[in-house]
Amino acid sequence: MNFLNEIAHRFPDAISLAAGRPFEGFLDPDDVHRYFDAYRQHLSSRLGGDEAAVRRTLLQYGRTKGIIHELIADHLRVDEGITADPEALVVTVGCQEALYLTLRALRRSDRDAVLAVTPSYVGVHGAAQLVDMPVLPVRESPEGIDLEDLRAQVRCARAAGLNPRACYVIPDFANPSGIRLDLDTRRQLLRIAAEEDLLILEDNPYGLFGDPAGPPTLKALDSTARVVYLGSFAKTGLPGARVGFALADQRMAGSPGVLADQLAKIKSMLTVNTSPIAQAVIGGKLLAHGSSLRAANARETAHYQQNLAQVLSGLAKRFSDSPGVSWNTPAGGFFLLLTVPFPVGDELLEVSAEKFRVLWTPVHHFYADARARNVMRLSFSHLRSDEIEAGLDRLADFIREQPHT
Amino acid sequence: MNFLNEIAHRFPDAISLAAGRPFEGFLDPDDVHRYFDAYRQHLSSRLGGDEAAVRRTLLQYGRTKGIIHELIADHLRVDEGITADPEALVVTVGCQEALYLTLRALRRSDRDAVLAVTPSYVGVHGAAQLVDMPVLPVRESPEGIDLEDLRAQVRCARAAGLNPRACYVIPDFANPSGIRLDLDTRRQLLRIAAEEDLLILEDNPYGLFGDPAGPPTLKALDSTARVVYLGSFAKTGLPGARVGFALADQRMAGSPGVLADQLAKIKSMLTVNTSPIAQAVIGGKLLAHGSSLRAANARETAHYQQNLAQVLSGLAKRFSDSPGVSWNTPAGGFFLLLTVPFPVGDELLEVSAEKFRVLWTPVHHFYADARARNVMRLSFSHLRSDEIEAGLDRLADFIREQPHT
Repeated sequence: MNFLNEIAHRFPDAISLAAGRPFEGFLDPDDVHRYFDAYRQHLSSRLGGDEAAVRRTLLQYGRTKGIIHELIADHLRVDEGITADPEALVVTVGCQEALYLTLRALRRSDRDAVLAVTPSYVGVHGAAQLVDMPVLPVRESPEGIDLEDLRAQVRCARAAGLNPRACYVIPDFANPSGIRLDLDTRRQLLRIAAEEDLLILEDNPYGLFGDPAGPPTLKALDSTARVVYLGSFAKTGLPGARVGFALADQRMAGSPGVLADQLAKIKSMLTVNTSPIAQAVIGGKLLAHGSSLRAANARETAHYQQNLAQVLSGLAKRFSDSPGVSWNTPAGGFFLLLTVPFPVGDELLEVSAEKFRVLWTPVHHFYADARARNVMRLSFSHLRSDEIEAGLDRLADFIREQPHT
Repeated sequence: MNFLNEIAHRFPDAISLAAGRPFEGFLDPDDVHRYFDAYRQHLSSRLGGDEAAVRRTLLQYGRTKGIIHELIADHLRVDEGITADPEALVVTVGCQEALYLTLRALRRSDRDAVLAVTPSYVGVHGAAQLVDMPVLPVRESPEGIDLEDLRAQVRCARAAGLNPRACYVIPDFANPSGIRLDLDTRRQLLRIAAEEDLLILEDNPYGLFGDPAGPPTLKALDSTARVVYLGSFAKTGLPGARVGFALADQRMAGSPGVLADQLAKIKSMLTVNTSPIAQAVIGGKLLAHGSSLRAANARETAHYQQNLAQVLSGLAKRFSDSPGVSWNTPAGGFFLLLTVPFPVGDELLEVSAEKFRVLWTPVHHFYADARARNVMRLSFSHLRSDEIEAGLDRLADFIREQPHT
């Protein structure tokens, strides 16, 4: 993503339909104090007022698996219907570390591989690259994952001597496509995982901003410990805390404990433990909202839903009669995919940035290859209403000016 | 170290001469508020009062290389005589992540290896294990490193088809031995590194607690970018912030920028960025003390020096007439090595914990092999004076009761 960051840096007055950041209008540095103190008070009462122990827990080196595991287990029960053993949780430096730890633990030899629904979040390619593990693409479908292709890719990989260990998926409002898997697809995916002896790596940073009546998480449906749940507080907590977690309750052949214990062992060699100060801030936010991040994010959820609706109606207004321009209609999340009648590579993004002052993400960045496709990801999470209108106007100008339109 | 943690957990009433933690008597959770606000204010004035930008910097996703790089460069100048380009700094999740990033960047193929003065800090073995890089031991000497053996190991490795990229060393009060390299040894080490085309990985968590008239850091002596400086704020800042850094100003063949840029690229796939909240806490501590952590740690330095003196005189009092018992006499730091007339393995540690209620660290944990040696590491950083006396009494009882004494 260095090229994308560089473009954003070179054109600071461009409107970004590229950045996948949470909306920052509700961020408040005073929350750091408020949440830290809420957790400190909670800790003091849990430790029977032993202030030396409070001090040690908050400020000293600490437990590799983290200190807010019980609060996270509460949150998963309240918000996601997931029953989590706190001992199967590892608090990590963002979800990205959780992904790295999981892939590193699964890689026992050069033959181990990970499947990923593709186009897929760049983080999975990055983590896999660090552990020297191939990423085998599984086709996305309008339902979110092409299950026939999943089976075919597993067969294919095994025939090539590879050992596919897990399949990475964002079931709720995927990055980049915004698609949400329906209940039936979730059940089929879990069944195939059991039949093919795969783990599912469920990454869920956006689910809580969706309709609470939507389908349950894969982990909530998982009765046989097939799913490693990768959690992020970057969107629902505070991005600047850099706190995420893995719920990994799998018993692993030949090892004591559960997969979480192996992740902790790797973490002890990587980052030792996640800052207890940062954990306290997230723990305090959980405490301040009865363990419910859905409740904590009522304003944010309304903002994201409103932005999505505005982008969808704004696209319809501008492109309904444009041949070759179409888009999907996610029910939530931060992203959607816009198809245009010409391939959009990095060179065109540069033109768009320089001449039209609007940024978007060429979708090839979410594939292992670098072949430009006719698709761009539009992101709208961090924008205000007026920025969305201006951004879409500029985008329409850009698209209209391309020779292939 | 899992076995050592487990022993400590099983015998909570044992006095620990094993834990290498900083003294926690001066830790104060209110410092988190104080330092965070100091940095926030600094940022606000640097950003001309743009509170939206302050909010974004403190709480949003942020710069991969970190936000307190300029303050760290000031600190290195003030405390260490190091001239650092802030752009060559990467702020990391503790020094351990800095070590991982560096080894991951240096490993281009299976043939790359790292040398380490041995016995060596367990973290280097851990990070090397994660990147599948062999650690080649270099003998320690009374001067801290056997330079003849360094040359021999490089030759040997090359003859075996390996490519030794760097040598890891803690020049100031090493873990576990407490030895400080003198100026002449430092100069020779730098010369050999240049001759053999090695980088030096200088890990320096304890140097600031030593005599300010002591020898300069290797990085301060480094005029040709041979030294990657690995910094920790766990002992001088706050352990619970989990903030460290790498200063990596090397230009690398075939890559733009400096080594720090490669570390940042790897970091973007590993932890994305170091929590700006945690960075703000460390940044605030730097601001509160005119960028000098030596000044900030006047009380701590006195405490560590006093503990060292007490342990040295306590050992003399108890073991001067004990045949086969000897120890080295570091001039600072957290550790020293005690030699006893029998091999001390994990089983004897368990006896010591259970029967004598005193913990120490068998030195074999600092070697790649698991062969028990006649040496234990004693740590004294986190203890009060009365705990040192009681701990040494118990240790003397343990040693006296062993059949080989």
